Amino acid sequence: MEIKVAQEKISKALNSVSRVAAGARATLPILNNVLIRVDDNKVSLTTTNLDMAVVSFLPATSSKNGVVTVPARLIAEFVSNLPRGELVEIKAENTKVDVTAGSCHSMINGALADDFPELPELEQDQVVSFNIKTEDFKIGLSQVMMAASNDTTRPALTGVYFNTFEGNLYVAATDGYRLAERRLVKKTDAEVSAIIPTSSLQEVLRSLSEEVEQIEVLFDNTQVRFRLGDVEITSKLIDGSFPDYRQLIPKATEISLELGRSELIRVTKLAALFAKEVGGSVVCGTSVEKGTFSIGSVANELGENSSEIKTTIEVDGKVTLNSRFLLDALNAINEEKISFGFSNKLDPVVMRGENNQDYIHIVMPLKS
Amino acid sequence: MEIKVAQEKISKALNSVSRVAAGARATLPILNNVLIRVDDNKVSLTTTNLDMAVVSFLPATSSKNGVVTVPARLIAEFVSNLPRGELVEIKAENTKVDVTAGSCHSMINGALADDFPELPELEQDQVVSFNIKTEDFKIGLSQVMMAASNDTTRPALTGVYFNTFEGNLYVAATDGYRLAERRLVKKTDAEVSAIIPTSSLQEVLRSLSEEVEQIEVLFDNTQVRFRLGDVEITSKLIDGSFPDYRQLIPKATEISLELGRSELIRVTKLAALFAKEVGGSVVCGTSVEKGTFSIGSVANELGENSSEIKTTIEVDGKVTLNSRFLLDALNAINEEKISFGFSNKLDPVVMRGENNQDYIHIVMPLKS
Repeated sequence: MEIKVAQEKISKALNSVSRVAAGARATLPILNNVLIRVDDNKVSLTTTNLDMAVVSFLPATSSKNGVVTVPARLIAEFVSNLPRGELVEIKAENTKVDVTAGSCHSMINGALADDFPELPELEQDQVVSFNIKTEDFKIGLSQVMMAASNDTTRPALTGVYFNTFEGNLYVAATDGYRLAERRLVKKTDAEVSAIIPTSSLQEVLRSLSEEVEQIEVLFDNTQVRFRLGDVEITSKLIDGSFPDYRQLIPKATEISLELGRSELIRVTKLAALFAKEVGGSVVCGTSVEKGTFSIGSVANELGENSSEIKTTIEVDGKVTLNSRFLLDALNAINEEKISFGFSNKLDPVVMRGENNQDYIHIVMPLKS
Repeated sequence: MEIKVAQEKISKALNSVSRVAAGARATLPILNNVLIRVDDNKVSLTTTNLDMAVVSFLPATSSKNGVVTVPARLIAEFVSNLPRGELVEIKAENTKVDVTAGSCHSMINGALADDFPELPELEQDQVVSFNIKTEDFKIGLSQVMMAASNDTTRPALTGVYFNTFEGNLYVAATDGYRLAERRLVKKTDAEVSAIIPTSSLQEVLRSLSEEVEQIEVLFDNTQVRFRLGDVEITSKLIDGSFPDYRQLIPKATEISLELGRSELIRVTKLAALFAKEVGGSVVCGTSVEKGTFSIGSVANELGENSSEIKTTIEVDGKVTLNSRFLLDALNAINEEKISFGFSNKLDPVVMRGENNQDYIHIVMPLKS
């Protein structure tokens, strides 16, 4: 195996694949390696942690076919410190891999490609695919991922649920205490119902470069593949059924307010400071008499606090929320005017942007 | 006690003092508090961790004299989230402290000032003082602090040694494996020999704002005080004697090279990657025949590497160094041309900038 490639190109490709390898457990040492395959001046770099595989494709100036594996992080860091503008030459004889650029030379001990695991291919007859604008994908995923659970005893809740409903593609996540849903694609004929691990989506988001305007997402029954220009990420799906979340979203709420997002974030942070002592619980209320929305908390040891925002109020009400969940929701809504709806102490609070109906975030109240 | 102060001013002051309080051990809970003292429209905010105290002074619009203590981090975070442009009113009755701005209100449980420890004053008849340009202080300290030791069994080496010699003020630090020295003030009549804890100097560096052009440093026999505009930091000195380091600096070296700093950093990083396996040891060498300086490392498991830099060589030589110490030294020298001098395998390596003779960094070789 032999290739000559511009330093910038191979460095970028190695950096993007080495993250997945570096996260691999040491139980199977070859998972720390990147598989370098050369086939007619086409080079592919592959890493996997068994749940997920990343492949980066790049062209070589000159090459000899072959395949080898080398420690991914080592070669990535080495190549990234080689002089810019130089051609990097990588040459493998058995498992000895020579890397040279200008007057810098190294010999890295690699391993045979035979032991390198590869994820199975997608089942072509099952494949459903969607094209999603990169910008929509980025914003949409960042708006729902924080609502996914970390609790590995309920695996279905640790991922993001991609599902089609009445001709639209939605992404949704919930940890049982809050739920976020965002519409990603309007008017699609394809149908899907699949849970993607949050960690795989994080890797997809990290791998997105500015040049990629559109993402192709392909599902079969057990896997998903993201095509991002020169990078392809394949992940296992989570095997499990996602709760029927649409029935949890209230059709309407008794009280509905319009609030400024940045002011609401600021006063929620104030209340959250004192709420640390009481498990994050803050009390939101409306007062028709004062014409105010208020948020506050009472902590025996630290003290207490409350802040008020003037707004139009038609009904008195009160609800207790976890301040962290409230802040997560407010940070996710990327509009300045927020609609904040709640009913009685036990019904979920519903938050949306005033203008964009594609996103909804609901938070269950705490008992108070 | 009662004050009215602009939000921006009190927020900045609370932030700068709360760092020291927040670092305090919980063994003495009042160390988490900030002491707020009001005396004729002058407000001082004080925190201490017993080794170090920070006082920030600011003027109040209107005030009633008094003194109280409140949890420093809580009030700092609270005030920083109050609306900008508002006046913040702080009012204490016994230990209940009310903080109000606009429609945001809180009551924080404080503690009586009687229990708050204060560092003893400087002994006026012992005081020696220096005025140092902020820019020189910042650069000079950042160039030597990394050479101080973390080994608390040798306390004298964990600080930075401020010392006068032949009418100049120097700062120096060493951990026994490397030594960095920088001249801070030329032509001074004052004399000092004092070791300042690195942690106190880090706090001084963090507290420096751009408006402060000059720092006043006052020593007595056991303490040092830094006056930085509205902020005053007082620290205990380290009780111990610093090694007579000047005799460790070689007068001359057998081999002396001029090398480009950024290229040397780059190739040292390459060698350091492989050196991880062998305790960081990299081999530097000169070859008269090739006209090159080379740096490389050999690691049995990972592989090996070497890089060469063309330069004028008059003597063949070889020395083994710890790559981290070499990188620390190169990062500290803020000049592109570096003079790199070494003798035989056991003599220290001497590095300086080509133009500025105020700074010197020496590194002891490893046995190879």
